[in-house]
Amino acid sequence: MTISARRDRLRRLLADAGLDAMLVSDLVNVRYLSGFTGSNAALLVLAQDETPVLATDGRYRTQAAHQAPDAEVVIERACGPHLAARAAADGVRRLGFESHVVTVDAFTALSEAAGNGCEFVRAAGTVEGLREVKDAGEVALLRLACEAADAALKDLLERGGLRAGRTERDVRNELESLMLAHGADGASFETIVAAGANSAIPHHRPTDAVLAAGDFVKIDFGALVAGYHSDMTRTFVLAPVADWQREIYSLVAASQQAGRDALAPGVALSTVDAAARQVIADAGYAENFGHGLGHGVGLQIHEAPGINSAAAGTLLAGSAVTVEPGVYLPDRGGVRIEDTLVVDKHPELLTRFPKELVII
Amino acid sequence: MTISARRDRLRRLLADAGLDAMLVSDLVNVRYLSGFTGSNAALLVLAQDETPVLATDGRYRTQAAHQAPDAEVVIERACGPHLAARAAADGVRRLGFESHVVTVDAFTALSEAAGNGCEFVRAAGTVEGLREVKDAGEVALLRLACEAADAALKDLLERGGLRAGRTERDVRNELESLMLAHGADGASFETIVAAGANSAIPHHRPTDAVLAAGDFVKIDFGALVAGYHSDMTRTFVLAPVADWQREIYSLVAASQQAGRDALAPGVALSTVDAAARQVIADAGYAENFGHGLGHGVGLQIHEAPGINSAAAGTLLAGSAVTVEPGVYLPDRGGVRIEDTLVVDKHPELLTRFPKELVII
Repeated sequence: MTISARRDRLRRLLADAGLDAMLVSDLVNVRYLSGFTGSNAALLVLAQDETPVLATDGRYRTQAAHQAPDAEVVIERACGPHLAARAAADGVRRLGFESHVVTVDAFTALSEAAGNGCEFVRAAGTVEGLREVKDAGEVALLRLACEAADAALKDLLERGGLRAGRTERDVRNELESLMLAHGADGASFETIVAAGANSAIPHHRPTDAVLAAGDFVKIDFGALVAGYHSDMTRTFVLAPVADWQREIYSLVAASQQAGRDALAPGVALSTVDAAARQVIADAGYAENFGHGLGHGVGLQIHEAPGINSAAAGTLLAGSAVTVEPGVYLPDRGGVRIEDTLVVDKHPELLTRFPKELVII
Repeated sequence: MTISARRDRLRRLLADAGLDAMLVSDLVNVRYLSGFTGSNAALLVLAQDETPVLATDGRYRTQAAHQAPDAEVVIERACGPHLAARAAADGVRRLGFESHVVTVDAFTALSEAAGNGCEFVRAAGTVEGLREVKDAGEVALLRLACEAADAALKDLLERGGLRAGRTERDVRNELESLMLAHGADGASFETIVAAGANSAIPHHRPTDAVLAAGDFVKIDFGALVAGYHSDMTRTFVLAPVADWQREIYSLVAASQQAGRDALAPGVALSTVDAAARQVIADAGYAENFGHGLGHGVGLQIHEAPGINSAAAGTLLAGSAVTVEPGVYLPDRGGVRIEDTLVVDKHPELLTRFPKELVII
């Protein structure tokens, strides 16, 4: 699917909603609908015109023409107000806008620019809804991001990067370097390396804590490739392994398998969460799994859909999601196992690093 | 200055503006005023009460108590609406809010939560204005961030990291690894490594372009330490150096010196810009310096004040700013030299890596 096909989907939604146009303010959404990656931009998509209008400032003249060749590019620092005025002048009467992104002050500027003839209509989440289903080009980039993360973790283990005496920060530093070496543009988010009792903290920042024999080492990380994120968690043990560690590792692995098995188009998001959660609850650890099962991944590390007990809606074919149950025993240690997958009748596993318990 | 002293400054501003309280929504501002670094929070600062109210969700119960011991912590996922309702219930009649941060949808939720008795008053930029002047603790962290960047660049050169045959990405990867090794929590922003003709692009993303003899290599990067950013640019030459390269290097160095010499409390921001810009204009390169001279640096990589020709206002003692003129010759190459300094009668240079032309 080309980028223009993404806009065509949006234009059909606009027509269905009785909107003449939509003003896209969120930069990730601008990128998704135009290809343009600059840091100051807005995009006007018209229901009845195939050519969108991309506004950006003078720094990006060349880049905008190159990245968004099928858009009309206008150079104007105040991107949003300029496009609002343009829309009003072009006869747009009902203009969708991103009310979940536009600030109160920015909305005042938009309203003043458009004048009285143009009605602003809240259209929060419209583009995010489109982004939930990935097209082939997006899946290809997600694959590359996941491959870079896989390769970096494999390399880390083969180099002996996980060993007693190193600090959490040492491991983080080496893993992030290896992701860059394997083609990533950067880390997708702040890498979590959590050793020993720290592994019981779901979102732990790496410290100078030293890896020691008998520790769980939980690593949650991702690679960024051409704007697309990967997300994977693996938990290792530094020998010797204790029985309680084997027990909760097996439990989380079974829960994660159940969650993956539940992925299919049309399944309720809360049902997927429940499939994995029930395994942990049945073993008596319900209170030790205090977060949702997963989330969408794409141009943002967290995007639609959320997979949790309170989520409405169903899984869509072609969405990319994580499945990441965990069991955390305060002051002892915790395990999380997480993959990124593309939902389909037979979901595609993008993070392929093995999930068997590795004792180092 | 302690964090409570920062709030005292805000409380005096509130009293002066006739506001009973301020609802702080921006997470960086919440961090500045409370010490709390979680990803979901809001802070209510009352003009007449020393104890602020910090709202966050259950994930952060322990962290909030630890990081913000002198705040009243309430656990509530909808942080902003909860505090708006709390303010109204506590008799707040005029409530400042961050109209440059709060979205249209979020404002609707705040208004509904507060009900009719509470008037919302736009207070955009109030906390950012306080943040412009750094206290001693902040300057100490900025020093650490700049030292990590200095040490990484020194290390890169001593290892022979800049040599013909390497790619821009190779250099970026090694430099970012070295920043981590020298104590940084990460890169402050996307590192720029631009070789040869790419150095003429002010904000170039590293590619697989290979460094070659005769190239300028422009490196713009920073280290993040405990939330504080550094920002530095150095430009090197791979031998042999051409006369035009010496010429524009000397020119930019003289411009940068003029800009640094102009830094003093009370000087108009536009005057500082002009001091550096005039040197470049006098040499006939005015059109080859197309960006502002500098910007504030702190908890964000770009913050107040902006130093450019259109900036209103004056430099404040204790602000941390960059001075970064450049001359860019399209398709040939460019030079930028940038330091981070703390403004004072005798400004303190934080980025201490030498600025003499290095020919490698």
